[in-house]
Amino acid sequence: MTITIGQVMDRLLEQTPLIEPTVDSLRAGSAQKEVKGIVVVFMATQAVIERAASLGANLIITHEGTFYRHQENMQGAQDDPVIYEKYNLIDRSGIAIYRYHDHIHRSKPDGITLGLINALGWSPYVEEHLPAATIVQIPCMTLERTVQYLKEKLQIAFVRVVGEREMPCSRIGLLAGYRGGAALVLPLLMDYNLDLIIAGEGPEWETPEYVRDAVHQGRNKAFIALGHAESEEPGMKELAERLREQFPALPVHFIREKPLFFVM
Amino acid sequence: MTITIGQVMDRLLEQTPLIEPTVDSLRAGSAQKEVKGIVVVFMATQAVIERAASLGANLIITHEGTFYRHQENMQGAQDDPVIYEKYNLIDRSGIAIYRYHDHIHRSKPDGITLGLINALGWSPYVEEHLPAATIVQIPCMTLERTVQYLKEKLQIAFVRVVGEREMPCSRIGLLAGYRGGAALVLPLLMDYNLDLIIAGEGPEWETPEYVRDAVHQGRNKAFIALGHAESEEPGMKELAERLREQFPALPVHFIREKPLFFVM
Repeated sequence: MTITIGQVMDRLLEQTPLIEPTVDSLRAGSAQKEVKGIVVVFMATQAVIERAASLGANLIITHEGTFYRHQENMQGAQDDPVIYEKYNLIDRSGIAIYRYHDHIHRSKPDGITLGLINALGWSPYVEEHLPAATIVQIPCMTLERTVQYLKEKLQIAFVRVVGEREMPCSRIGLLAGYRGGAALVLPLLMDYNLDLIIAGEGPEWETPEYVRDAVHQGRNKAFIALGHAESEEPGMKELAERLREQFPALPVHFIREKPLFFVM
Repeated sequence: MTITIGQVMDRLLEQTPLIEPTVDSLRAGSAQKEVKGIVVVFMATQAVIERAASLGANLIITHEGTFYRHQENMQGAQDDPVIYEKYNLIDRSGIAIYRYHDHIHRSKPDGITLGLINALGWSPYVEEHLPAATIVQIPCMTLERTVQYLKEKLQIAFVRVVGEREMPCSRIGLLAGYRGGAALVLPLLMDYNLDLIIAGEGPEWETPEYVRDAVHQGRNKAFIALGHAESEEPGMKELAERLREQFPALPVHFIREKPLFFVM
C-alpha cells in the first residue's frame, strides 16, 4: 500500500486542533509523492539531509527551520553561499522537508516537553502540565547530582548552571526550547514555589540573573540551561517512535545531530 | 563643588544625540541629590547594590535592567519575593540607579563594542565600525588559539564554540550583547567574508546552526558565544574610566560580578 507525504502530514495534524498562522508546512517537496522512508530530527542540518539521502529516506520531519530562522523568510537569502548549497542539496536529493513545530508544542500535554520528561524518567513525578511548562516534584537531590542525572539520562556533554552545588532540588519547572525568559519563568518560580528551572535556552540577563539574586538573598533557587536541541530532541525521538507504530511498513529513523557547541 | 546625579546623567547624554523612546532613565533616586560616589556595572545585582552601599556610593550606572527585563515593566512584579527584597534594599540604601544602555550603544562607534575591542587589544585591526558590529582583521590564529586569547584577555572561565579547532581565523565580526541572531549576522558573514563571529549571546538554532552547516560544507567559519555580560563588561569598565577623568573629585568604581554560569 502506497503512503504519501500528505498522508503522513495528515496523521501528524490529527493529534491537535489546527493552528493558524503556523510555521508547520511542507517546505520542500510534494505532498502527492510516495514516502520511501522518514527521518525525524530536531533540525534538518546539511549532514542530516546527506544522511537521509544515504538511508533512502525521502521525507524529513524537522522541528526547527532548515534555514536558521523561525519564520524562514528567504528574502535575499538565496545569495548566501551556505543557504544556496543547502538548498541545492535538498533540490538534488528530492527529499521533502516538513516543519513540525507548533502542533507538537500545542498537543496536550506538549509533545516536546513530554519527550523530555519521559527521557528523564520523571513522568511519575508530574504535578501539572501547563501550556509552556511542566511542574514536577522529584525525590530530593542536590543540584550537582541533578546535573549529573540530566547529563547521564540525556547523554549531553555539558550544561550551564546558576546556583549552589549542594542545594536540594525537588520542585522543578521544565521548559523545553526557547522558553527560559523572565515573562514565563518568574511567575512559575513564585506561584509553584519551585527550586529549579530546567530550560533549553533563554536570554542570560533575565531568569539566570534573577536566580543569581535569589541565591544571594539566601533562597533555594537554581537554573540549568540544557541547550535548545538537547531539550527538544527527546520529544522528536518519541515522535519517530509513534510514526514507526503508525506506519509499520515505513522505515522511520530518528537522527540525533552531534552537539552544536563545545566548551573551552 | 557639589555634583548632582542630574549632572552626571547630563554628561552621559552629551556624547550622543538623544534617543526616543529609550530605556535609559533614572530608575531609582532623585536627579537633584549630590553624588557621593559612583558604581558602574553591567547589571545592578543584589550583591552589587550591597557592595555599592558598603563603598559609600549612591549612584549605580547599570547597562542592563535591574529587574530582569529589558523594558523593566514592573506590573505585578512587586508580589515577587526576590524583586520585593531587592526593591527594598534599593529603597533602604538610598542608592540611585541610572540605566545607561541605548545611548552608549548608539555612540559612534558603539561604546560597548569599543570597550570589547580595546580589552582584546584589537583596535589596530579595526576595518569598519558598523552600527551593531565591528569588523576586524587580525593576524591569523587558529580557532583554538583565538579562544585561549579571548579567555586570557577578558579573564573568562569558558566560552561556547562552533567550528574546528585548527581552523585559521583572521576576519572577525564582533557583536557585543544579544546580537548573535541570524538577521544581523548572516549578511555580515557573507558581505565581509568573515571567518569567525564573536558574539555575546543569540538564539542557538540561528547563527550557530548556520555555522555548523557551513563547516560541514567545508567552509572556513566559526562562532564563539562569549556570554552576554562577558561581552559588555569591558565597555562599562571603560565608561567608569571616562567618568573618573570627567569627575576627578568623585570616587568611581567599576564592579565586575562573578561569572553568571558555571559549566558542568
